This record gives sequence, C-alpha cells and structure tokens, in this order.
Amino acid sequence: MRCIHCSFEAELDQSLITCPNCGGLLEIRCDPKIDFAFKSARGRGVWRYSPLIPGKYSRVVSLMEGDTPLIDTSSFGGKFMAKFEGANPTGSFKDRGMSVAVSNALTLGYRAVMAASTGNTAASAAAYAARARMRAFIVLPQGKIAMGKLAQAILYGAYVIEVQGSFDQGLETVMSVHRVEDRIYPLNSFNPWRLEGQKTLAFELVESVGVPDAVIVPVGNAGNIYAIWKGFMELKELGLTDRVPKMIGVQAEGASPIAKAVMKGKDVPEFEEFPETVASAIRIGKPVNWLRAMRAIRESRGTAITVSDHEILQAQREMARKEGVGVEPASAAALAGYMKLLESERLSREDLTVGVFTGNALKDPESMMRVNTNRFTVAPSEVLKLVERELS
Amino acid sequence: MRCIHCSFEAELDQSLITCPNCGGLLEIRCDPKIDFAFKSARGRGVWRYSPLIPGKYSRVVSLMEGDTPLIDTSSFGGKFMAKFEGANPTGSFKDRGMSVAVSNALTLGYRAVMAASTGNTAASAAAYAARARMRAFIVLPQGKIAMGKLAQAILYGAYVIEVQGSFDQGLETVMSVHRVEDRIYPLNSFNPWRLEGQKTLAFELVESVGVPDAVIVPVGNAGNIYAIWKGFMELKELGLTDRVPKMIGVQAEGASPIAKAVMKGKDVPEFEEFPETVASAIRIGKPVNWLRAMRAIRESRGTAITVSDHEILQAQREMARKEGVGVEPASAAALAGYMKLLESERLSREDLTVGVFTGNALKDPESMMRVNTNRFTVAPSEVLKLVERELS
Repeated sequence: MRCIHCSFEAELDQSLITCPNCGGLLEIRCDPKIDFAFKSARGRGVWRYSPLIPGKYSRVVSLMEGDTPLIDTSSFGGKFMAKFEGANPTGSFKDRGMSVAVSNALTLGYRAVMAASTGNTAASAAAYAARARMRAFIVLPQGKIAMGKLAQAILYGAYVIEVQGSFDQGLETVMSVHRVEDRIYPLNSFNPWRLEGQKTLAFELVESVGVPDAVIVPVGNAGNIYAIWKGFMELKELGLTDRVPKMIGVQAEGASPIAKAVMKGKDVPEFEEFPETVASAIRIGKPVNWLRAMRAIRESRGTAITVSDHEILQAQREMARKEGVGVEPASAAALAGYMKLLESERLSREDLTVGVFTGNALKDPESMMRVNTNRFTVAPSEVLKLVERELS
Repeated sequence: MRCIHCSFEAELDQSLITCPNCGGLLEIRCDPKIDFAFKSARGRGVWRYSPLIPGKYSRVVSLMEGDTPLIDTSSFGGKFMAKFEGANPTGSFKDRGMSVAVSNALTLGYRAVMAASTGNTAASAAAYAARARMRAFIVLPQGKIAMGKLAQAILYGAYVIEVQGSFDQGLETVMSVHRVEDRIYPLNSFNPWRLEGQKTLAFELVESVGVPDAVIVPVGNAGNIYAIWKGFMELKELGLTDRVPKMIGVQAEGASPIAKAVMKGKDVPEFEEFPETVASAIRIGKPVNWLRAMRAIRESRGTAITVSDHEILQAQREMARKEGVGVEPASAAALAGYMKLLESERLSREDLTVGVFTGNALKDPESMMRVNTNRFTVAPSEVLKLVERELS
C-alpha cells in the first residue's frame, strides 16, 4: 500500500483506510506476480476475480453484484456500448465496491459503518450492512436526494441523518467522525477497499470485448474512473492485456472542478462551494479522489469534458427511447459526453467506446416524469377510438 | 401449438396468438427431440437457451435480460434462495418474455404493440418497443400504478392511456382491440410467446442449483407460475432432469381467486370484481391464465396460499433488513408465503425452496418509505454527537 500524497509505503494491511503518516489517500497495489487467467476464473460478478482482490475475508458479503449487461447500441453514430450498472442489486455501480469494503469491515470486527452520500452510496451501504448484520449510519444532504435512493436507505433500515448542507459537507463530517470514532467503519470512496471492488468493471469489459479504445465515466467524487483505470492497469501489468483504454471523465457544467482543471491544463482543480446540476449523483464540488482521477485521465491519455443539464436530460431520453435502456441523469452524462466527443472529433466513430451507465433510471422517478409523453385518461370504451386515431 | 380450451391443434405458427378456432389460449409445444445440453449453451440470459425457444427471429430484440442473481438467505429458518428478478433491465421478470414477444412482433412486421398493465408489463413493453423502434400503447388503471413503473413508461416514450377502471377492464380492452385491429401486436400474457421467454427462469435454476424441491411464485395474471413450470417440464421431457419442483402460487388476500379455488379444491376460480391489495403488481381479480396456473399447481403437486397485506409488507422489510435484498411488495409475497408454509409444515426446512422475487423495490418508492426508520435532520456539527449517543 502506498499513500498517493506523501508516498508513505506499507505492506498490505486490511485495517488501513487512510495514510497513517499524513491522513492522505492510500492506494492498494496488486502483486504483479499473481497467477490469474480469465479462462480459469469461476463464479460470477465481482468475486469471480477474487485472486485479483487483495486481502483475506472471514466472510464475503455479496448480493451477486457485478456481471452487468454490456448492451450494444446502434443510434449514436459510432461503436458505442452501454455498461448498464443499473442492473446491480441496489441499482448502481456502488455495489461492486461495497461488497469488498463491507466484507473487510466484517473481517476486522466492526459492527457499524458510515457513509455520506448523494444517494447511491447510501442505498448500497445500507443494503450490504443489513446483509452483514451491521448498523449503517448514512449522512445525506437534506432535500437533495433522488426519491428512490432515500426510499432504499429507509427500507434497508439505515440510520438516516440528513444534514443542512451539501454532500461535500456531509463527507467532511464522515471523515471527521472517522478520525475520532474507531468503532465505525467509513464506506466512502476515500476507503481504498471499495475501489478494489469497483475495478472489476474493467475485468468484465476485457473478458467480454477485450480492451476498448475509450471508456467514458461520469465523475462525481471521482473514485470510479480511477478504480476502472486501475483494473485495466493491473491486467496490463499481469501481461493479460497490452494496453489500457483512454479514460474519459464527464462532469455536469455546474459541478465540474476536475473537468475544468483538465480542460485548462491545470494540475489542481478549483473546488466549488455550491455545485448544482440535475444529475444529483454527481452534484459534488470537492471530489475527494481528484488526484486519483486526474492521474487516470493523464496516464491513459484520456480527457475530461463538461455537459449541460439540458444535454444530460436529452441523453437520458435518447438512451431510453432509442435503445430501451433506462438510466439516471448522472449516468446519461456518459452518453452526452460521447455525443460531444464524436462531434468535436476527439473520438472517432470507429473507436470502440464503452459508456459506464452508473445507475438505474428507477433511482430518480421524478427525473423520468419530467419527460414529455402522450398521456390520456379515458373510459375503457374509448380506447379503441383513441388508438385508431393515432394509427391513422 | 394446442389450444388449452378446445384442444385445437396446429403446427408451430409464429403469427398465432390466440386459438383460431375458439379464441382461447394457445400453448406452444417444444419438440421433445431438440438437441440441447447445458454444457454447450453459449451467451447469457434468455437467449442462452435459444434452442429451446421455438420460432425463427429476423432480429432478436434484447437488453441482456435474464441471468439474474440467485441469492442465498440465512434468516428464514430453511433452505431458501431468492431469485432476484429485479436485476432485469427494466427491473422485473417481464423482460424475459418481452424480449421474445417483441422479437416475434418485429419478425412478423408489426410496427405497434399494446399491453394492459399493473405497471411492470408497461415498463417492459415500452422499453423493448423503443429498442425495436415500434410504438407502444400502454393501458393502465388510473391512479393504481406504482410511481416508478408509470415513470418508466413515460421515459421510454410509450403512448400512455389511463383508463377509469381496473387492470382487468384494461386487459379486456386490449383483448377487444386485438380482435378488431390487426396492426397492433398485443403483449399481455395471453400471448404465448411471452411465456416462452419467462420459462427460461427454470433453466437458470437448474443450471445453477439443479431442480429445487419447491418454487414459490407470486400470482397475478398467473402466466409466470405456468411459464416456469413449463420450463421445468420441458427439461424433464428432454431427459435433462428427472423431476419438476412443486409449484406454489401466492396471492394477496384481497386478490386471490386462484388461491381460494385451490384451497377449496375447486376446478374453476370465482373471479373478483374489486381486487384490493398493497401489492399493486398482483392486484388482479380475473387472471387470464388461471387455467394454465391451476394445471401447473396440480400437476406439480404444489399448492396455492394467500397472504395478508401486513404479511407482505413485513416480508418486504425482512428481506431488505436481514438479507439486503430490495423487492417490491408483490415480490415479497413469495417470502410471506414461504414463512407460512414452513410454519404450517407444508414445506420442510430441508426442502430447497426458491422464491421468485419478481420486481425491484425501486419500482414502488412509496411502499419503501412507509417503513419506519431512524431519521434525523441536524447541522453537520451535530452528527458526531448523534452517532455517539446511538452507539453508547
């Protein structure tokens, strides 16, 4: 393990979360001599790749996360595939990492977990904590959570704390609780064990279509783009692949510290105090994993761009109405980004590009109902007339 | 193909939906001499079993439906596994059948489809029609649809017709439109091609755990319990298995024509004019597939029972809070039924029992939010104090 800030190094230690030297973010390094081959992998989902997930676990807390559909598209003018993470057990990619991190917490003997969330982390942490018979403390920015996600945290029995403030303030709160309260295991993405689960998305892509030319990832707290890149890097280090895809981050215009820094060629983003976008899952102004994400983007020769809320909602509708895939607004940013990159010729139509569609449309029913549709109320006897009129 | 009412028989004809002789329901019979072995099956989900799905399709309209998690449980006192159909592309088991039926509609040259729905069929039909570039006319009972499902139909661009009446009236309307309007392909479960997709759930169970002792299925319009039984029967006829599980149907007390008939030993159910239950997906008083379902139950030596709304909501909460699996109320009926059958010793703790959890909790956020949880609103600076109090 190695601190990405002060370069402190340590042997693998499952009890470490942040750097014992400077409090910075730790990176877990995979042994490059692991004996792993796809053709001998067994099982499905995240734990199919257990030789590549460091650590020993007294019990694996799993809901069969991962192994999500990779859906071909034909409507967007290029070779674009949708990795539909909405098919995960709680409806988002968070489940991949939560399975590893909660297994780790259980192994270490914790009986309570905690996470700040824009919603998806809340749902996932609450579900896995329930399965592990642990208590889950969830910190949410009051009034800024999509309805489905809040409802999930409630159903799974989490202890729900709504703070008067932003997600970023919620995350700072969790980090400060973590510094003084060692009975609670923090499940936000500054916890590197979560990223070990999230990286398996890369493994699934390689196993099904090989190494794509580019992977587009919506960026909020910025852990996922790094985790997926890490997965590709590990396969390359193991000699199982010979390259990594360009990693492309997409942020909403109103919450885009990383994309702005990348576009301006800066090394450090300017954080945003009041992030705002319809895509609540990426409404984050101070991404804790900014350094990791910028490294993934730079080293893979990728890029980052911004998309407007209008482009996001349009992409959400197109994905549903042309391809039949229902995604939440933050996920639709991946498609909005793709369209923009095609248009500006930063991606070619021939580049095999995978969009990571991080969460299910059902997470945010209100966003779906904003879309226009034909909708009528009639007596049953009127239906035939209505249909005939429409068909003629 | 064979009519289950008048015994009319015909060669396989993809254009047939109902019996040309009496208008009754048709059964599609699989050739018992098909060359199929699990070990040579390729691909994932429903179409992995394409040799067992009759018909030729000009294009397969698929969102990678099926291949859903089979999740072990440890909280309910017996060997009980959850087949989590909520992981399907639109969040319910309907996607399995919709993929086959919409592929068929496309092959036959239709450009519009229609379905009455309590919600899940609406979402699924709208998504697959969108993917096939067909129009979808959806008939819903006004004000009786879970929010997520209505929102899906809107997002996917369906033509939404809300009727002042029940689901049963909506279905009668679709059947009457079907009789006079041959430009529209009906997608309700009286269409036997849908059931050909739904039966693949049985194949997945056999491939992962063999033939269970019992399979518990929530029963609304009653197509699914028959379709799953049909899948098991076909494997037995092909010599790939040597038995079929007991098929057990669960209905809500307020919408239980089939369960009441089975419990009273009657051959024909008494339909209910005003079905009522919190489990909107099975709020059906006149199940169109009642004869099919009762045959599956009888021939498999299964049974049918009723559960109360209170038992359903309690099972939904237990499934989420003890196992981390989020299901909609209608699905939770499967667990409520299991608990009742264990208690009354109609199932043994040793019987390997699979509950079919038909739809995702996210389909019905309002039902989730009815559950009690600890929920507080505080300033970020108050969080630590709150958590310390709770841990002490």
